[in-house]
Amino acid sequence: MNHRPIRLLHFLRQCLSAAKDSLTQVSHSISSKQLLFFTDPVTPGSVFFLPHGTRVFNKLILFMKNQQLKYGFNEVITPLIYKTKLWKTSGHWDNYKEDMFKVEGNDSSKEEVVEEGENLHEYGLKPMNCPGHCLIFSKLERLYQELPIRMSDFLSLHRNEASGALSGLTRVRRFHQDDGHIFCELHQINQEIGSTISLIKDTYNVFGIDSEKIEFFLSTRPEKFMGDVLTWDNAEAQLAQVLNSTAGEGKWQIREGDGAFYGPKIDVLITDAFDKKHQVGTIQLDFQLPARFDLKYITSDGSRDNRPIMVHRAVFGSLERFFAILLDHYQGKWPFWINPRQAVVIPVSDKHAEAAKQVQAQLQGEIVGGDAALAPLTGFNFFVDVDARSETVGNRIKEAIRHGYSYIVMIGDKDIEKGTVAVRSRDSRQVENVTVNDLYSRFVELEKSYK
Amino acid sequence: MNHRPIRLLHFLRQCLSAAKDSLTQVSHSISSKQLLFFTDPVTPGSVFFLPHGTRVFNKLILFMKNQQLKYGFNEVITPLIYKTKLWKTSGHWDNYKEDMFKVEGNDSSKEEVVEEGENLHEYGLKPMNCPGHCLIFSKLERLYQELPIRMSDFLSLHRNEASGALSGLTRVRRFHQDDGHIFCELHQINQEIGSTISLIKDTYNVFGIDSEKIEFFLSTRPEKFMGDVLTWDNAEAQLAQVLNSTAGEGKWQIREGDGAFYGPKIDVLITDAFDKKHQVGTIQLDFQLPARFDLKYITSDGSRDNRPIMVHRAVFGSLERFFAILLDHYQGKWPFWINPRQAVVIPVSDKHAEAAKQVQAQLQGEIVGGDAALAPLTGFNFFVDVDARSETVGNRIKEAIRHGYSYIVMIGDKDIEKGTVAVRSRDSRQVENVTVNDLYSRFVELEKSYK
Repeated sequence: MNHRPIRLLHFLRQCLSAAKDSLTQVSHSISSKQLLFFTDPVTPGSVFFLPHGTRVFNKLILFMKNQQLKYGFNEVITPLIYKTKLWKTSGHWDNYKEDMFKVEGNDSSKEEVVEEGENLHEYGLKPMNCPGHCLIFSKLERLYQELPIRMSDFLSLHRNEASGALSGLTRVRRFHQDDGHIFCELHQINQEIGSTISLIKDTYNVFGIDSEKIEFFLSTRPEKFMGDVLTWDNAEAQLAQVLNSTAGEGKWQIREGDGAFYGPKIDVLITDAFDKKHQVGTIQLDFQLPARFDLKYITSDGSRDNRPIMVHRAVFGSLERFFAILLDHYQGKWPFWINPRQAVVIPVSDKHAEAAKQVQAQLQGEIVGGDAALAPLTGFNFFVDVDARSETVGNRIKEAIRHGYSYIVMIGDKDIEKGTVAVRSRDSRQVENVTVNDLYSRFVELEKSYK
Repeated sequence: MNHRPIRLLHFLRQCLSAAKDSLTQVSHSISSKQLLFFTDPVTPGSVFFLPHGTRVFNKLILFMKNQQLKYGFNEVITPLIYKTKLWKTSGHWDNYKEDMFKVEGNDSSKEEVVEEGENLHEYGLKPMNCPGHCLIFSKLERLYQELPIRMSDFLSLHRNEASGALSGLTRVRRFHQDDGHIFCELHQINQEIGSTISLIKDTYNVFGIDSEKIEFFLSTRPEKFMGDVLTWDNAEAQLAQVLNSTAGEGKWQIREGDGAFYGPKIDVLITDAFDKKHQVGTIQLDFQLPARFDLKYITSDGSRDNRPIMVHRAVFGSLERFFAILLDHYQGKWPFWINPRQAVVIPVSDKHAEAAKQVQAQLQGEIVGGDAALAPLTGFNFFVDVDARSETVGNRIKEAIRHGYSYIVMIGDKDIEKGTVAVRSRDSRQVENVTVNDLYSRFVELEKSYK
């Protein structure tokens, strides 16, 4: 059991402050009760995820990485700091500089010699992944048969929000996105956006957000725009068509002239259980970055002067923000598959402690509970604790519920005799007697169905 | 197939320069041939991992995350930037500042008001995870029953190496460690170090590095040291004892007076297939950071004035460096389980293209090849391509070998008739006829046994 008296008010206050953006009064205390995350003045706006918060965070990432594999994305690992030159190429230096952090070595003798008039020592800490992905695209000769090329990236991003605006998980300076960029031809937009919207709907459904609670907005050409009107019209028409066929006709709205100057976009908003709206996913067409980075591909006739279109897309959007939405949405009652505390085994008395440990190992799955010296690469992994403290069973059950365990598994003389365990869920007092194997199979089924 | 003519000399030169630290002439071209990674002057010393390099990198991380779960580590996610104040507390500002990058917002109005005489706007980009982990330890009240507390972290670290010293994957500015810190009592060191050494040996064995090729060095108390002689003697005696029982008596060497000022350490070196030695794993005892961060835990008698000992340990060490060692070690012939190109399916002619795709989906496993709309969280995932180009089968086989596919799977009329495929490995010309199910089972077995 990892629930310890916390260093009192000091820590609680930080958890509360970290959760102050949450929608309801109740959820304020979830992070501190479940020990999920905290922030500290030593780095405002950067979240520390505690072990149990990290479990949830990693499940979200794993979920999306697996979906992206299925959807033909290739993950890449890109640097965090880039010299100012790159941010000038991308346009961030002109349009986004104030929201960026600059980076410099403390010892300038470690850099190459400075050219006159340019500070070659200065880097920008990346606020977005797109310039890095454009660089990767530009490194190889690309053929039309290869398109669409889909890259994904999950690394840290930093944006310098004003310190006064920082709040919990939703207004942060350091965050992560389930970021992806698709480089494609104009005629492929339909297919790509269509499957992105499918993934968005399927994903939100997993978290119990019905399709009716998902709103789509198409933002069109603004007064100041890049590129030619024909391309815009074509792209907007495709987006509208795709929204009709996926979201459904009349199920999406237009925000006239609200597109970015580099392309039209679709914003996705969800309504949570408390009727509060959150912007989450986004799909943005970009005609500009490919031009700025002079990206090209070779067509079937050998011509080399063709620019791909770039699509920025995210399903969760900010992982931190999505985490906050889930905190409110579930009120700490995580579904089994994403629960950082999936089960606790309670030995009735000291003499059942050994049996409890065996049950734990069986329920944990192959990664932790397997017999081999090394854990396998692929296998189930459930988070199962043992609470063998010398408290009454009743008290331990109460505490387990308070900490949000999905299942409470008790084991005493009778259970050992019958070869079963006594199980109850967090939400029902009903106790069942089942074999450990059956319980394990239930865990597997719950994960498989994302319940 | 993802092998495209690359943007010629420009890119090749960067791959070569990125690989110039590799031990042999042959390996220079592996990264460019297999499209694994590159570097770019826009961020010297920060590696871009291409999709296939990312696959290898992610397998290494997944391997270690699973081992750490088994060994009782709890992963945490910690910030990348911390105000100078933290680096003063940790001692990095006095001892390590020149190797660090400083970070500052471009728009200083976004920070809180500056106290006189202190630059509260300045951050350090983390070169190590330990201070962040100490902060996490200090946030909660810790009881002796909780110890050892084991934290792990896989996030980016930055150290400002001189630009002239940068080289490929081994001298970088941005890198990742399989970093872990154990907070424990003195009497627990034995157990903790012992299991770390087991993990180190088991891990290196997976990569074909025999136990005899692993060397252990115990570095003892230097002239300038922190803490009292008795604690040092005790700790060194425990380390020696642990080395005797795990590495074996006479199987390790002492480096007298070579310990860090904050504690004794064990360095682990491996010898590769070319008899070159590399420092990889490390185990360091630290009496200092727990004092600097005033870390305490409560003992059984309720006393609150007890300092834990901190153990820094890494098995791979730098992931980038370990990647480089593996590149040389395998000469591009990755074992199946870690190969970014595990199999390629070659349809004999156009009319077998559809069958080839079905074989691909079956061999890919549940994540990508499953029928459900959403990929499951847990399941096998093999990297299987189809090469349906209108080249002769012989040419496609040759190219597949050049690109390092572990298995080449051919399908034509006879195969479809018999319900089998024709398979050969990268390393043998012998062709077998097997069912796709049997081949898939072989893939699963290879992964399970880390072959």
